[in-house]
Amino acid sequence: MKIILIGASGTIGKHVYSELSRRHQITSVGKTSGDIQADISSVDSIKAMYDKAGGFDAVVCTAGSGYFGPFDDMYDEQFRTGINSKLMGQVNLVLEGRNYINDNGSFTLTTGILSDDPVAMASNLSTVNGAVNAFVKAVSYELKRGIRINSVSPGVVEDSKDTYGPYFPGHIPVAMQRAVSGYVKNVEGIITGEIIKLY
Amino acid sequence: MKIILIGASGTIGKHVYSELSRRHQITSVGKTSGDIQADISSVDSIKAMYDKAGGFDAVVCTAGSGYFGPFDDMYDEQFRTGINSKLMGQVNLVLEGRNYINDNGSFTLTTGILSDDPVAMASNLSTVNGAVNAFVKAVSYELKRGIRINSVSPGVVEDSKDTYGPYFPGHIPVAMQRAVSGYVKNVEGIITGEIIKLY
Repeated sequence: MKIILIGASGTIGKHVYSELSRRHQITSVGKTSGDIQADISSVDSIKAMYDKAGGFDAVVCTAGSGYFGPFDDMYDEQFRTGINSKLMGQVNLVLEGRNYINDNGSFTLTTGILSDDPVAMASNLSTVNGAVNAFVKAVSYELKRGIRINSVSPGVVEDSKDTYGPYFPGHIPVAMQRAVSGYVKNVEGIITGEIIKLY
Repeated sequence: MKIILIGASGTIGKHVYSELSRRHQITSVGKTSGDIQADISSVDSIKAMYDKAGGFDAVVCTAGSGYFGPFDDMYDEQFRTGINSKLMGQVNLVLEGRNYINDNGSFTLTTGILSDDPVAMASNLSTVNGAVNAFVKAVSYELKRGIRINSVSPGVVEDSKDTYGPYFPGHIPVAMQRAVSGYVKNVEGIITGEIIKLY
């Protein structure tokens, strides 16, 4: 299978790359690294990425950011960071990619535990995760040619324990192998419209 | 209680107005009607609305639109209609209003069944509803001074049966009185962080 992996050098992405590259041909994408450079917050950048990539069977996105900071300092401008990146970035990967992807291909997006289980300072990411989960479910019924779409929603992963752990009091870090399994299930399995909750 | 009701002349809003105005002082807001004119897709318009309204105890929003149309014609531009109106409009009502609202005040936002139970052509609204529901839950823990926030998530209402009913095959229309009850519960009750599902 030919897979475009966006965020291939990230905390989760690099492990997804290791696992999927054993059996598939991966085109790695990063903002400044990888086979192709692209910024998902720009529709033009996404279009250029698909043009360069050629035909493909799966898109996996482990990229996308949002505002993580004091609630009292969060206004429209800060809130738009998650809207434009993790939400519209992933939405546009699908809206632009649906006409390029091969029959029976799949999109795998990334959300996270915060939509269900909020922590301080992260309401932008909670919102964006909830949005992408609802998008996945609705769009799964609209896609044609056997194209599937799912999201992986991990808890805070073990590899981020030192940096993000203190912001997730009482959360049990998720083993990286378990997080990666969600991506494998989406790409190699048959499910569609599912939110794979790994927490 | 002094309540700002945005969307006061809408299908649901006019019934919420009738019910709440029996016991409370309502400032009605509409794009082109009401005591104050405001467009929630503009932060400046929201700020001007709060400046005009003066002190208040509750904000109820029954306004906000999104793209409803063929999936194949939906790209970033169409998707942004719901992002800018029903999502960021309601988010900004809270982010701008939280510093004006009286102690123990409340925000009541509107989502809808589509985040859980999609229909054709409505994935933008499904997404936006999921976003606002997650926002409400996360932000309920961040608001101070006893300020509450909830959303009302109705199914297609009986009054919209003729116009929207055909797009919701097999959905059982919700009695308007039941939809209105959700707003009463949020404004006059004690709950916070809840999605009142009326379907």
